[in-house]
Amino acid sequence: MTGYPGFAFEVTQTMTAEPGWPDAARRGVITTPHGLIETPAFIFCATRGALRGVVPSQARAEGTQIILGNTYHLMLQPGAERVAALGGLHAMMGWDGPMLTDSGGFQIFSLGQGTGAKEIKSSRTNARDPSLLSIDENGASFRSYVDGSKVTLRPEDSIRIQRQIGADIILVLDECTPYHVDRDYTARSMELTHRWAQRSIEEFGRAAEGSAGPQALYGIVQGGVYDDLRRESTDFTAAQPYFGYAVGGCLGGTAEEMDEVVALAMAPLNAATPEPRPIHLLGVGSVRDVWNGVAKGIDTFDCVNPTRLARHGSAYLRPGLGETENGREYINLKNARFREDDGPIDPECDCATCTSVSRAYVHHLVKAGEVNAIHLLAVHNVRFMNRLLEDVRAALTDGNFAAARDHWIHG
Amino acid sequence: MTGYPGFAFEVTQTMTAEPGWPDAARRGVITTPHGLIETPAFIFCATRGALRGVVPSQARAEGTQIILGNTYHLMLQPGAERVAALGGLHAMMGWDGPMLTDSGGFQIFSLGQGTGAKEIKSSRTNARDPSLLSIDENGASFRSYVDGSKVTLRPEDSIRIQRQIGADIILVLDECTPYHVDRDYTARSMELTHRWAQRSIEEFGRAAEGSAGPQALYGIVQGGVYDDLRRESTDFTAAQPYFGYAVGGCLGGTAEEMDEVVALAMAPLNAATPEPRPIHLLGVGSVRDVWNGVAKGIDTFDCVNPTRLARHGSAYLRPGLGETENGREYINLKNARFREDDGPIDPECDCATCTSVSRAYVHHLVKAGEVNAIHLLAVHNVRFMNRLLEDVRAALTDGNFAAARDHWIHG
Repeated sequence: MTGYPGFAFEVTQTMTAEPGWPDAARRGVITTPHGLIETPAFIFCATRGALRGVVPSQARAEGTQIILGNTYHLMLQPGAERVAALGGLHAMMGWDGPMLTDSGGFQIFSLGQGTGAKEIKSSRTNARDPSLLSIDENGASFRSYVDGSKVTLRPEDSIRIQRQIGADIILVLDECTPYHVDRDYTARSMELTHRWAQRSIEEFGRAAEGSAGPQALYGIVQGGVYDDLRRESTDFTAAQPYFGYAVGGCLGGTAEEMDEVVALAMAPLNAATPEPRPIHLLGVGSVRDVWNGVAKGIDTFDCVNPTRLARHGSAYLRPGLGETENGREYINLKNARFREDDGPIDPECDCATCTSVSRAYVHHLVKAGEVNAIHLLAVHNVRFMNRLLEDVRAALTDGNFAAARDHWIHG
Repeated sequence: MTGYPGFAFEVTQTMTAEPGWPDAARRGVITTPHGLIETPAFIFCATRGALRGVVPSQARAEGTQIILGNTYHLMLQPGAERVAALGGLHAMMGWDGPMLTDSGGFQIFSLGQGTGAKEIKSSRTNARDPSLLSIDENGASFRSYVDGSKVTLRPEDSIRIQRQIGADIILVLDECTPYHVDRDYTARSMELTHRWAQRSIEEFGRAAEGSAGPQALYGIVQGGVYDDLRRESTDFTAAQPYFGYAVGGCLGGTAEEMDEVVALAMAPLNAATPEPRPIHLLGVGSVRDVWNGVAKGIDTFDCVNPTRLARHGSAYLRPGLGETENGREYINLKNARFREDDGPIDPECDCATCTSVSRAYVHHLVKAGEVNAIHLLAVHNVRFMNRLLEDVRAALTDGNFAAARDHWIHG
C-alpha cells in the first residue's frame, strides 16, 4: 500500500473452495514498524495499557502477535500527553510488537447505550449513562470518570491522541450505531460517521508530518443491519485512502445475523482496490465467530474475553472437546466439579499454566480469591486464542478449513 | 545431621570480627531433597499455596531459593487431604524448590490477639477474634473461616498435616506468646509450648514411617521478652533432636528490644550441639532486621511484606538510596510524585519489572486499579529481598559486613 511507509499487507494464500463454504478466507502478513502479524490473527485488549494478568514477555511467550490499547481510557488516565512523554504506549508498557488503538467511538457509544459488548449482542438495557453529554456534528462530549471534567472528543482529537499514544494501526472516530434504533437513525448515524471519517483522514494527513513514527489508518464500516446502508458505508469506506478497514457497529441480534452483516460488508471491501487491504472485525472473538469471520475474509479480531473470563475464574476450552456446558466455550474453575480434578485446565494446551498446574489448584485459588488465579487463567486464555488462530491459519494452508472448524466446534 | 536423610547444614564461612559487631554471622548451605539453600536466605510466604502476584517460574528467575506455606490456611482450604491427593504442595503449586511450612501456631495466636504482625510490633488491639474457641493442654480449637466448622489443632495434628502438605522443613506447634502479657503468663505459655514440642517430636518419629518423602523438623524457641525464660526455652529447644530452630514469639516492643531478644536466644542455640543447626527468625524481614539478625547468627528469615507491600502499591527501595521517607524502606507508587517519573522503580534493580517499565507506568496502573500493578511490584519486591540477602552473603565473604550494612541502610 503506497502512502504508508513501513507498512504492507500481503495475501499469501486464499482458501481452496470447499463444499458449503465461501472462498473468501485468506492467509496474509501485515508488516508494521514493530514487526509482522501473520493473519488471520487475534488482537488482545490492553485496555488501559495493560493486558490484565499477563505481562508483555508472557504474552509474547504464549504466541501473541499484536495488542490493542483503548484511546478513550488512555486519554482520561494517564492522559495522552503523559503516554507521549513516556515514549508512547509501546515504551510505556514495555511491548515492542505491533499495536492498534481504537478511536474512542466504541466507548462513547457504550456510555449512551449500555455496554458495547451487550449492544453488539443486542441485550442492552435502556439505561443511559449520565456521563455522555452529547453527540453532535462537532464530536462527542462526556464527563471523565477519572476527575468529572467535561471532555470533548472530535474526530481530529481522536487522531491527534492516537498519534500521541503511537500505536502502529489507528482507527477513525465513528459513532458505533446501536441495535435498537430504526433505519432513519442508523442512516443519519452512518452519515455522521462518514463526515467524521473525512475529517479524520484530513487530520491524519496533517498530523503525520510531526509524528514520532509511521502509523497506518483504518476506516470503519457502519450501517447497522440494513443491507443498503451497509453497502453504502462499504462503498464509501473502500473509496478512502485507508491502509485497512474495520467492520463495526451493530452486527445483528443473533450469531447468524452477524454472519450476514459481516458477509454484506466483505465483498465490496475486497473488490474495491487492486491491492488487498486488511479487514478487522471489531469486538468479536468467540471460537465460532472467528471461524465464520475468517470464512468471509476477516483478517483480524479483537475481544476482551480472554482477560475478562480470567477475572471471573473461567478458562477457554475448545467446545468440540465436549467438556463445556450449554454451548459455552469455557469452563468456570470455581465450579465444585473441579475440586479434585488433577488434570490440566486444557489437556490440549501447551501454555505455562496448563503445563505446570491442575484444575484443582486453580479451583482452590479462585475459591480463595487469590490474585494468581487471574494470572494463570489469563495466560491460558491468551494461549488458547493464539492456538485457535494458529489452527485457523494451518487449516487454510492445509486446505481442510471445514473439517478443522468442525473439530474445534463440534469435536 | 544424622536422623534427617536427604538433609544437611554446613557452615561455609563465619564472619571476620569487625569493630562494634558480634562475630556470630555465618554463611552456610542447607541441603534439602528439593535442592540447596544458600544462607543467609529469605523465605517468601506463599500463604495459601501461591506467592501472591508471582508464579513459581518468575520467583525462581528473581533468585528465590525457598518458599513457605501456611498450615493454618491450607488445612482449612483446600484441606490437607486435598493437598496430599494433588501430590503435596510442591506438585500442587508447581514449585520444585525447597519449601517450609509453619505449624499453624502463629495464626491461632493471631486469632486470639489481633494480627500476629501487629503483635510482634506490639501494636495489638484488645479485640479478641471470636473464631478462637480455646487453647488448652490438648491443643487449640477455632472456627474455620471457610465453613464455620469447629476445628481442633493438636500438636500431633499439625505434624500429620505438615506431612500431608509435604514441605521439606516443618515446624512444631507452639503458642506464639503475646507481648502484653506478664511473666507468669509467658512462663506458662512457654511450658505448654515445650510439652507440645515433645508430643510433636514423638508424632514426627511415628509419622515418618508412612511419609511420602523425607522432612526435617524445626523446634521453636519461646519465652517472650524475659531473659530467664528465653534462656530456659533455648536450653530446652537445643536439647531436642531437631534439624534446626526457629526463634518465635514476642520479640519486644522496639527494634532494639528485638535485637536483644534475638541475641539472647542465639548463643546457647549455637553452643548446644557439636554440629551446627540452621536458625530461622519467624515473621521478621525488614532490611534493618535482616542485617542485625544475620549479625547475631540468624540463617533464614520470612515475612509477608514483599507481596503485601505490592498489593498496597509499594515497592522496596534501599533506605540508603535516600529516596524513601520517614525511615521507610519502600515507596508507594500511588504517590503523585511518581506521575511523570520515567525512571525504573529501583535504579539498582535488575528484576523483570525494573528493566522493562517506569515508575510512571506502575503509578498509572496502581491509580487505575489494574491487577498487573500487583504483579509488577511483587516481582520487584521478591527480587529486592533476594538481592538484599545476596549482598549479605557477599559481605560475609568479602569481610565488609559493617560497611555493606551501612550502605544499605544509610547510603
